Amino acid sequence: MAIVPNVKALIYDVFGTVVDWRTSIARQAAELAQVKGVQLDPIAFAEAWRGRYQPQLETVRSGKRPWTILDVLHRESLLALLPEFGLEGKLSEAEIDEFNRAWHRLDPWPDVVAGLTRLKRKFIIGPQSNGNIALMVNLAKRAGLPWDVILGAEVVRNYKPVPQSYTDAAKILALPPEQVMMVAAHNNDLAAAQKQGLSTAFVARPTEKGPSQTTDLKAEGSWTIVARDFGDLADQLGV
Amino acid sequence: MAIVPNVKALIYDVFGTVVDWRTSIARQAAELAQVKGVQLDPIAFAEAWRGRYQPQLETVRSGKRPWTILDVLHRESLLALLPEFGLEGKLSEAEIDEFNRAWHRLDPWPDVVAGLTRLKRKFIIGPQSNGNIALMVNLAKRAGLPWDVILGAEVVRNYKPVPQSYTDAAKILALPPEQVMMVAAHNNDLAAAQKQGLSTAFVARPTEKGPSQTTDLKAEGSWTIVARDFGDLADQLGV
Repeated sequence: MAIVPNVKALIYDVFGTVVDWRTSIARQAAELAQVKGVQLDPIAFAEAWRGRYQPQLETVRSGKRPWTILDVLHRESLLALLPEFGLEGKLSEAEIDEFNRAWHRLDPWPDVVAGLTRLKRKFIIGPQSNGNIALMVNLAKRAGLPWDVILGAEVVRNYKPVPQSYTDAAKILALPPEQVMMVAAHNNDLAAAQKQGLSTAFVARPTEKGPSQTTDLKAEGSWTIVARDFGDLADQLGV
Repeated sequence: MAIVPNVKALIYDVFGTVVDWRTSIARQAAELAQVKGVQLDPIAFAEAWRGRYQPQLETVRSGKRPWTILDVLHRESLLALLPEFGLEGKLSEAEIDEFNRAWHRLDPWPDVVAGLTRLKRKFIIGPQSNGNIALMVNLAKRAGLPWDVILGAEVVRNYKPVPQSYTDAAKILALPPEQVMMVAAHNNDLAAAQKQGLSTAFVARPTEKGPSQTTDLKAEGSWTIVARDFGDLADQLGV
């Protein structure tokens, strides 16, 4: 068991850390393609949609546009992708809304539900994600993810990794930063959290971006805990 | 079973509706008085503290002061009460902080945990309270209250019954207002929610304010559902 500061709350990244967005979006893109009689590469579709994610967030982080929730940004990206994948003019507005909610129907990695269930016994647990609240609620209800609170972008009204994301999360929980542990599969997320005084846990997700992933294969900082998965994290935290 | 619109989420008032603030604060005031060797009337203390609640919220609702969370308002009220109850100069700053968190340690009415557990199977459930997020998190962890999301004042950054409290809650859940049901023991809370198009459920708490309570003894509007308690609410919603 790791020697860990007096951690009271675990807040965690969701896309990539808790859920496998790549194969979940690809699965739904394949279903859509079949219904619409369109040929497309579902994995390429998922990666293209996600590829627009950081540039979109950056428009908000930079102050170029006012606070905008991820559902809206995802929809704008989706509209831009439709022609690229032979889907232009094939979806009604209602179908676009429905397919945009593919992000509300992502599957968790197999260790997550059991791991979070254990962690919840001892700690306050909640997502600190760039997803909006409705997305997190629907994701959790569908996947059976147990959590105590939904923090993240819509509560803080900004996107990780701006420092305020982490400091506000601790402040909202009324805890000193070191008693809040940021859990993520992304070293840059942890580095940003650590800079604000939070405890950190790296959970490896070496296939988040597919079999030939080259980044975030291992811990690249002095994180409080380095874990194989959420079960290992629970082991190391003694729950 | 009532004929109910296509409700997807139940959001509920907490102080009075979910928890019995009066006897819970009185219990803790009695403990404090004993530790400090002070004579005080614990029920009078609880009622005096709560008595400062609406005037405090009004300073925010009216725009006289900027957004301020309830923990801060409770602490200001507590400081004002200490001399009145013979506690002036008897508590350190840390003890004041600790006792201010008496509001994080309120006991639920006996029907709540079982009722919410049933309701959670079918509906998104979450508090729409004037309490801040840390208060709601700590209350729920201690009492074993299951919920999917914490909405309310700190997410909306204003206090019920301003219209925005209800419209923003539905918007955050990405649901049309009629698919969101406000559950409360207070007719004015339901009236304000109904005016914004939400569905409503009255749950009677005839002893919230003690044995001689004169207000909110019964439903005083055309609420979607009128229930005896959360178990009856679950029955009427068919879960």
